[in-house]
Amino acid sequence: MAFSSYAYLGPEGTFTEAALLQVPGAAEAHRLPVATVGAALGEVRSGRVDAAMVPIENSVEGGVSATLDAVAVGEPLRIVREELVAITFVLAARPGARLDDVRRISTHGHAWAQCRGWVHSHIPEAEYLPASSTAAAAHGLAEGAYDAAVCSPLLAERLGLAVLASDIGDVSDAVTRFILVTRPTVLPAPTGADKTSLVIPLPEDHPGALMEILDQFAARGVNLSRIESRPTGQFLGDYFFSIDADGHLADARVADALKGLHRISPNLRFLGSYARADKRPSTIAPRTSDEAFDAAESWVEGLRGGS
Amino acid sequence: MAFSSYAYLGPEGTFTEAALLQVPGAAEAHRLPVATVGAALGEVRSGRVDAAMVPIENSVEGGVSATLDAVAVGEPLRIVREELVAITFVLAARPGARLDDVRRISTHGHAWAQCRGWVHSHIPEAEYLPASSTAAAAHGLAEGAYDAAVCSPLLAERLGLAVLASDIGDVSDAVTRFILVTRPTVLPAPTGADKTSLVIPLPEDHPGALMEILDQFAARGVNLSRIESRPTGQFLGDYFFSIDADGHLADARVADALKGLHRISPNLRFLGSYARADKRPSTIAPRTSDEAFDAAESWVEGLRGGS
Amino acid sequence: MAFSSYAYLGPEGTFTEAALLQVPGAAEAHRLPVATVGAALGEVRSGRVDAAMVPIENSVEGGVSATLDAVAVGEPLRIVREELVAITFVLAARPGARLDDVRRISTHGHAWAQCRGWVHSHIPEAEYLPASSTAAAAHGLAEGAYDAAVCSPLLAERLGLAVLASDIGDVSDAVTRFILVTRPTVLPAPTGADKTSLVIPLPEDHPGALMEILDQFAARGVNLSRIESRPTGQFLGDYFFSIDADGHLADARVADALKGLHRISPNLRFLGSYARADKRPSTIAPRTSDEAFDAAESWVEGLRGGS
Amino acid sequence: MAFSSYAYLGPEGTFTEAALLQVPGAAEAHRLPVATVGAALGEVRSGRVDAAMVPIENSVEGGVSATLDAVAVGEPLRIVREELVAITFVLAARPGARLDDVRRISTHGHAWAQCRGWVHSHIPEAEYLPASSTAAAAHGLAEGAYDAAVCSPLLAERLGLAVLASDIGDVSDAVTRFILVTRPTVLPAPTGADKTSLVIPLPEDHPGALMEILDQFAARGVNLSRIESRPTGQFLGDYFFSIDADGHLADARVADALKGLHRISPNLRFLGSYARADKRPSTIAPRTSDEAFDAAESWVEGLRGGS
Repeated sequence: MAFSSYAYLGPEGTFTEAALLQVPGAAEAHRLPVATVGAALGEVRSGRVDAAMVPIENSVEGGVSATLDAVAVGEPLRIVREELVAITFVLAARPGARLDDVRRISTHGHAWAQCRGWVHSHIPEAEYLPASSTAAAAHGLAEGAYDAAVCSPLLAERLGLAVLASDIGDVSDAVTRFILVTRPTVLPAPTGADKTSLVIPLPEDHPGALMEILDQFAARGVNLSRIESRPTGQFLGDYFFSIDADGHLADARVADALKGLHRISPNLRFLGSYARADKRPSTIAPRTSDEAFDAAESWVEGLRGGS
Repeated sequence: MAFSSYAYLGPEGTFTEAALLQVPGAAEAHRLPVATVGAALGEVRSGRVDAAMVPIENSVEGGVSATLDAVAVGEPLRIVREELVAITFVLAARPGARLDDVRRISTHGHAWAQCRGWVHSHIPEAEYLPASSTAAAAHGLAEGAYDAAVCSPLLAERLGLAVLASDIGDVSDAVTRFILVTRPTVLPAPTGADKTSLVIPLPEDHPGALMEILDQFAARGVNLSRIESRPTGQFLGDYFFSIDADGHLADARVADALKGLHRISPNLRFLGSYARADKRPSTIAPRTSDEAFDAAESWVEGLRGGS
Repeated sequence: MAFSSYAYLGPEGTFTEAALLQVPGAAEAHRLPVATVGAALGEVRSGRVDAAMVPIENSVEGGVSATLDAVAVGEPLRIVREELVAITFVLAARPGARLDDVRRISTHGHAWAQCRGWVHSHIPEAEYLPASSTAAAAHGLAEGAYDAAVCSPLLAERLGLAVLASDIGDVSDAVTRFILVTRPTVLPAPTGADKTSLVIPLPEDHPGALMEILDQFAARGVNLSRIESRPTGQFLGDYFFSIDADGHLADARVADALKGLHRISPNLRFLGSYARADKRPSTIAPRTSDEAFDAAESWVEGLRGGS
Repeated sequence: MAFSSYAYLGPEGTFTEAALLQVPGAAEAHRLPVATVGAALGEVRSGRVDAAMVPIENSVEGGVSATLDAVAVGEPLRIVREELVAITFVLAARPGARLDDVRRISTHGHAWAQCRGWVHSHIPEAEYLPASSTAAAAHGLAEGAYDAAVCSPLLAERLGLAVLASDIGDVSDAVTRFILVTRPTVLPAPTGADKTSLVIPLPEDHPGALMEILDQFAARGVNLSRIESRPTGQFLGDYFFSIDADGHLADARVADALKGLHRISPNLRFLGSYARADKRPSTIAPRTSDEAFDAAESWVEGLRGGS
């Protein structure tokens, strides 16, 4: 699955671009930075690019609401790949600068929240200037309004900046998850370590309605790795569920669970089956293996025939 | 489905023969009375007859254990029909006899238990002589050891006996259920008011194992009309379940439930799908209709194709 | 729990009396044989005896319908004990008789079904005469209408009969279960290997209604050892469930399950908590131990207090 | 429940302060603006203030991850109140300014995303300057680096700014939810329209583990209004659930569900029971009313006593 053009949440040098560059062939493809997740998906939906890389979750922040909602409505999309990127920050400055000279630091608020601790203990006099993104802060160094920017290692390298300190974030193992999104297409082949993403409207709001949905997975031995109830945006109290399940549509137990879900909530949306970035294989009980499904199918066929 | 030869739990004149005579064409077919349920099924299994009529349940006595167990093991059989027979008893005597002359009454213990009340209030002096069956008691009238027998109206008519009193049982609406059993064959066509009988071994003995079995029905909107746990006969604590479910194998929701059951308990036994004698149609929720199953199937097929 | 008077399903010498004689002190107590299970329970309900021993299940025949139904309705009763009795048959004759002399054999039909095989291979010429019970057959030997009776070892010994052959039944390990029934009373102390018997009307007839009942057990880790749906007797299609569950009302998980059942089906009937005859201890998951229930109770109490 | 000192997510004039000012008595109390949700909760935990107001969810963005995680770990806290605030934006400028003069606009990125559409159609030439918050943008107007700020109506009024246009956001009915947090304390009295917030670690990661948690609610007729799985932050694949359930700890069905949850996942955290801001009353099935719980309790007590 190689594409010739990609949109991604920019500007250049974001962690999202780092995620995109992990995709084989992307380094040689056309890469279009855009300002918002919605814009990136819009480039895909309109056909101007083949695919878009956008952030979806990380181990610190959980689901990224805007992305979850953007794929849940509008023209159907497919997730075909996920990427994990370790989030590390560097303190970057103009070439030749030294840490002792840093008086004013700019970056995005989230990055500042994670790096403030390091700054306070190493250059306690430094002052903070907000920026709309870490990339904007790094690009703005040239203008001279501040002395250093907190940004990604990729961007510091790209812009030829001096790295005064590396890995200055509080959370040493923060990992962000990104998804690669296309228009509906043939699914990636199963790898044995896959996940399937779904958007499932709650058909009725009564105790047990969510149970009925989850039972469709549990009864087929399908584990979930993520669930979030999301307000539909129309009014509080109207929900859909954003779910990641272990396994691939090509697995009999996943296909059977999807059929059960379709009967309960026919407006559900299939977002794709794709390889897990962490390559952790699904655990499959004997009773929910493809062989067990085939055997059950054959048995019922035989009964119909009179055996 | 017309057969040319039948076995039934005899002797002639039992309620079981009455049930058999309700089957279209049975009155003209060969009918073989046998001594036990096991013998009747043996005649079918060996091919000496086409089908056997045996009792399975009534509204007073519940499941008839011997029949449940006999169909659960051995060569596979199919239930193709059920019949309900109202259980009513008559007091029969030799032609010309009068109620006042009755001193000794013979019948089977179960029949006596139901008619004792009537006898005590109408002929309180009468004495009870046990018999191995109501039919044996009626046939034995000729020998003169007693004056009257409690038996079925059919038998009294068949033997040309005088009916001294009718409907003398305590339970005025007792109904016994009978099943017609054949070797494995093409299933009777669905009627919209069908039931499906199953024998399901408990795969593991832990809290929730039975729930997993029943969930296969409930999750597909399939109602049960009977369930009994039965010891396997090997030792106390080892169980199977004898279950009647609403609907026919030709119904998508029933076939899907059977597939789910086969994955959980692969040694389950399908005993047949056949018309309910009470003609009460199954209630089907929209989400478990054949249409809902077809729509779900088509949707998943479409996803596989990339739409 | 010692009683001074008992009713039991007679006549003298039945397996039921054998079960009763296993109860400590019963050999010295007043023992009243009666003709039916209903009569035995009636003696208890009226207060004429303290307790009654009646058959409830065996590993060959499953539930004994009449007993299940008789305890399910009418004045409340309590099961306080269960007994297992190995079912073995002897061929008994008048003192001095020899096997070669046996021409006619009498016994109850069920006993005959189990011993017919032995008779056919050892005295193939012997003829069968039905009797209303094995005890009646043994008592009738004196009259001389037949030469031998199939009955229990207890009865042969009691009547001073000659035992021509022992253990002549087909099923070598048939075990019948009996229950000792009293009026409502303080429960027997828990032993760690107890069972609790319940009669639970189905509150509504829809797919999943039975699941809701069983979930009350499963959610508290309470295993079932028996379940039977029973028609209410009013018309086919109206059910209650006769259930045996592991554990004692004194166990927190059982008491909690009963509370849950009462909320779902307020007309359920508690038949008693009593020691299992097979002394098999209940398996208890840590999360459903009394300690886990106490800890949960304390936690919620603390929350209410503001901690 | 009146408090004398509050922290809130500042700076002054945020929607969070607007939420705080909806609390009776808060207008007269000490109000401390702080920079982050974590800092606001820290002020409560340390005892420097009585309570803190922080954002938790809105109908556009769903859960606010930082808040969910901050209350899930560390010293226990209690949610005692929730507030809803309609999110509306104004275009504010220095007194005397006119819309035609606006060349540069500053605000936070999220606010800009929502108001960009209005700006593009009304003053297409305007340029965007990012700010760390809408409040910072409004306060910075005095410095003259830009001509207008997008901020809340409250702040514009507070600072005496000219409102050039009102309600300029795309999403006309965006509603943000805020929670008022204290140290553990006596719970607010139930109102009949309450919710209970919980943090529940997944005890084991297998298909059905989440079902077991949700069954504790469904089996007691307790509806959920929000669920989110959240990575624990230690590594991907280790989860807890952040859940809002209908009802109050003082409701028997909620207390019973909490006990069941404690047995399954003893490290769960109770975050509080408090009035729903939307005042929508809980629907309560008869079988899960306080009366049904009392009746069940009394019944089991009676059984223990021998009745």
